[in-house]
Amino acid sequence: MGFISSKAKVSEALISLNSVILGPSVIGRGSFIDDDVTVGYPIRRKIKSIKRIDDLDSVSDGTRIGEGCLIRRGTVIYEDVEVGNSVETGHNVLIRENTVIGDGTRLGTLTVIDGNVKIGRNVSVQSMVYIPIGTVIEDDVFIGPNAVITNDKYPPSKRLQGVVIRRGAVIGANATLIAGVEVGEGAVVAAGSIVTRDVKPGTVVAGTPAKPIYNVEEYLRRRKIYESMG
Amino acid sequence: MGFISSKAKVSEALISLNSVILGPSVIGRGSFIDDDVTVGYPIRRKIKSIKRIDDLDSVSDGTRIGEGCLIRRGTVIYEDVEVGNSVETGHNVLIRENTVIGDGTRLGTLTVIDGNVKIGRNVSVQSMVYIPIGTVIEDDVFIGPNAVITNDKYPPSKRLQGVVIRRGAVIGANATLIAGVEVGEGAVVAAGSIVTRDVKPGTVVAGTPAKPIYNVEEYLRRRKIYESMG
Amino acid sequence: MGFISSKAKVSEALISLNSVILGPSVIGRGSFIDDDVTVGYPIRRKIKSIKRIDDLDSVSDGTRIGEGCLIRRGTVIYEDVEVGNSVETGHNVLIRENTVIGDGTRLGTLTVIDGNVKIGRNVSVQSMVYIPIGTVIEDDVFIGPNAVITNDKYPPSKRLQGVVIRRGAVIGANATLIAGVEVGEGAVVAAGSIVTRDVKPGTVVAGTPAKPIYNVEEYLRRRKIYESMG
Repeated sequence: MGFISSKAKVSEALISLNSVILGPSVIGRGSFIDDDVTVGYPIRRKIKSIKRIDDLDSVSDGTRIGEGCLIRRGTVIYEDVEVGNSVETGHNVLIRENTVIGDGTRLGTLTVIDGNVKIGRNVSVQSMVYIPIGTVIEDDVFIGPNAVITNDKYPPSKRLQGVVIRRGAVIGANATLIAGVEVGEGAVVAAGSIVTRDVKPGTVVAGTPAKPIYNVEEYLRRRKIYESMG
Repeated sequence: MGFISSKAKVSEALISLNSVILGPSVIGRGSFIDDDVTVGYPIRRKIKSIKRIDDLDSVSDGTRIGEGCLIRRGTVIYEDVEVGNSVETGHNVLIRENTVIGDGTRLGTLTVIDGNVKIGRNVSVQSMVYIPIGTVIEDDVFIGPNAVITNDKYPPSKRLQGVVIRRGAVIGANATLIAGVEVGEGAVVAAGSIVTRDVKPGTVVAGTPAKPIYNVEEYLRRRKIYESMG
Repeated sequence: MGFISSKAKVSEALISLNSVILGPSVIGRGSFIDDDVTVGYPIRRKIKSIKRIDDLDSVSDGTRIGEGCLIRRGTVIYEDVEVGNSVETGHNVLIRENTVIGDGTRLGTLTVIDGNVKIGRNVSVQSMVYIPIGTVIEDDVFIGPNAVITNDKYPPSKRLQGVVIRRGAVIGANATLIAGVEVGEGAVVAAGSIVTRDVKPGTVVAGTPAKPIYNVEEYLRRRKIYESMG
């Protein structure tokens, strides 16, 4: 059983009957909102304050989704999120409050973005990636499946220190990035690595803890050979 | 389309119209049950035995949720679970049968508790954590995102051997705990570690396989410096 | 609010009122389709082409689910999937297009199968496993929780190279398998390993990167002792 707020602007989008659009949300032309999607979900403090279920709509600030987006089944997007144009999510993705997602970015199934995150354009986030509060991901980054980003070096502490992933960097599957590290422009983190220190631009790192193994020119040379063998 | 069993006691809770409450479940005062939540989901044997969908309600033993809980969208709680007061779940959490969750504990989005698990009070489980049958987690434990606990040392075997995490221990992000290990009181497992042996109380371990690197006093000293730099 | 396509054949199955069955899907005798399950979900190209939400049904090729299956809450199965008999899924499993799942196989909660995958009979996939395009998994394989399989050795490249897991192999929890590796018949990959090379039949590997530690006879001997101590 779906619901579309009387305050929402969704007239040029395709909205499933089973989706829930709360507050003054705006959904752009040609965007597709699938079954069981919630847009404009209120933050914790507001949920704790309501007295009736219907108040979920009145307390929501709404969220903004651009044109030509594809938001798949089960995805929940909190209030105060800005989703650009041509963004796609897989199934059951969570995007919490105060997050900005740039145009053309894709977020894989079961990815969790825990709020106060900035993601650039044309970023490819594969399935099951965890992205905590304070993370910054620049344009054209690729993040492999099940990669885990953290934001607290000595948990549970009082300080959250976001990870920064610079333009064009590649994070391999099931890699772990420790709070506060910066992965430089065009750098590559091999699958399964534990990254405890900054990775210089154009460097490829691997292992536990991750150490440089070669540079990105070598990586691109190997990629070319690999592709030619396909 | 929601459903509330005629046997359930939910009169002092906030229940979404799209949630499903089965059997003689009890939901305490001031608890919030969000859209698409199922409470009292029957165990496998019962589901295999039913002849009509409506029987899901009649076969369920129900489950018990305390006061002031916040159960977010998509969470499924099986029958015969005891959830304390002021417990919160993220989105799409699964809690299977015969599980006890203490007061004030938080279970992050996409966490899976596979049944016959005991979790104490004020435990903080981050997103995407896997907790299998037989696990025991004491009060005040912190478990980082995507940590994986196991219960079979030589899978697939006939013996399940639960992990025990003692009071106040910290498990880092994406760590793997091998079946049967005990993580001692106040111990710390660094992010990405593979823990194959017991961790002594107050010890910090890291690596593959995890080995002691220093003690918890040193950890707390480093945390204090880290916090002061924020 | 559920939906069953007029083209679907489901008369001998138990279908929840909240499930969505699209296109000419066939669901075998005695199968149980739980709340919020979608069967026959259209591929991306088709979703991008539709003008009205109702068209989701008309564009779907449907999918085929055998007899005696148990498809739990929140699972999404795309069109053009063949699910054998007595298959079970946990909650919120995703199975994308052009995938074949053999009889008696179980797919754990939150497992993602990203399409064009072939899985044999009696395979046990635990929770939160990621299985990308091109993966082949033979009969009687066991895959532990949160294992991650990849299909691109130098991401993001133009070549996808699937992993092959031969009959009876065991993949430990939170292991990472790099694109193109073959895990031989009866081989064992220890929990948390990063597998960068082929694993010979009957060999046990562990570590980062994974190296042989002993053979499967030794593994079975240790399992027997382990079981006897339970």
